[in-house]
Amino acid sequence: MSADKEISSKSTRNRILDAALDVFSNNGYHTSRMDDIVDEASVSKGSIYFHFPNKERLFLALVDQFSDLIDRSVTEAIAEEEGIQKVSVAVETVLSTFAKYRRPTKILLVQAVGLGSVFEKKRQEVHDRFANMIEDFLNEAIAAGDIQAVNSKITAHAWMGAIYTLVMQWVMTAEPSKEEIQTHLLPLLLRSVGYEPNNEVKG
Amino acid sequence: MSADKEISSKSTRNRILDAALDVFSNNGYHTSRMDDIVDEASVSKGSIYFHFPNKERLFLALVDQFSDLIDRSVTEAIAEEEGIQKVSVAVETVLSTFAKYRRPTKILLVQAVGLGSVFEKKRQEVHDRFANMIEDFLNEAIAAGDIQAVNSKITAHAWMGAIYTLVMQWVMTAEPSKEEIQTHLLPLLLRSVGYEPNNEVKG
Repeated sequence: MSADKEISSKSTRNRILDAALDVFSNNGYHTSRMDDIVDEASVSKGSIYFHFPNKERLFLALVDQFSDLIDRSVTEAIAEEEGIQKVSVAVETVLSTFAKYRRPTKILLVQAVGLGSVFEKKRQEVHDRFANMIEDFLNEAIAAGDIQAVNSKITAHAWMGAIYTLVMQWVMTAEPSKEEIQTHLLPLLLRSVGYEPNNEVKG
Repeated sequence: MSADKEISSKSTRNRILDAALDVFSNNGYHTSRMDDIVDEASVSKGSIYFHFPNKERLFLALVDQFSDLIDRSVTEAIAEEEGIQKVSVAVETVLSTFAKYRRPTKILLVQAVGLGSVFEKKRQEVHDRFANMIEDFLNEAIAAGDIQAVNSKITAHAWMGAIYTLVMQWVMTAEPSKEEIQTHLLPLLLRSVGYEPNNEVKG
């Protein structure tokens, strides 16, 4: 593929993803048809099926796109951080990214439930991806002597479960509010590894 | 209904539930048919449909039965406890009940995923039931001065998320082991509310 063609193909793919998010958001995943997305994206029918063989794959690609966005945001945010601050800034960034993108969060987490085991596999994959990231950060913070020598694998899964559950709760019921979650969840997680957040609050 | 008839009807219902657990466990939820459960339970076809209009309802009744079992186990275990010990013993009991009943746990949590939004509603209901229970215990422990004045609603949902995620992880992959979870998860949760479990470990 020539560079030009690759760029154009990439942007077609992104245009389809953007359109799919709009269509799923307005009509719900189950009643949306590939044709609606074709119309919304102003692409040819051939082009949508070239990138995504079916609606399910398109949905899963949206999940990956959002996971990549969180991953990138975290990586940028922690670039200058070390030890426990890396852990802390990473969790803050995850929470603020969800809070900023309530619409995709709602579509990807809530509508996904109806997809059953296919989505469950993807959910597990994303969960493991971020649990592994947290585990690495925790191990660094333990090595730096910032926190207790906790079991970092169990801690990472427990944290992911806590974050996922509260974010789901928030997108479904708006209760607790994102401000409450952002205020209370991080200190709770940090205390769970023996770190008192009051000591070194970052402005 | 006479008392005799009620007892007999109750035991028929339980026999059907036991049989359903066996059949789902051996064949998987999706390939199991109501007829298989009729055979396994040695009840009449009329009798199974009298109690459960369809397979989905039967499955949801199993979830309720297991939730009731956990609820009863917790209520019994905490009868003599107060303050933070109530919180601690409740979480221990939940974890040991899951560990003791790996087969129903696996069927009810893992196979349930394929049920989509119907199960999601039930899962949310069960989640809220136990989150409310934990919230009450946390409020008591705060009132007793055993733990910090944390946001008990957010803490309760975070704990439920952590417990659910680790139990799911365990039934699906046997990793981390139930011993590891039992050893590390409770101290993690207790530390998250500012309680150092080493102070008052119960034999």
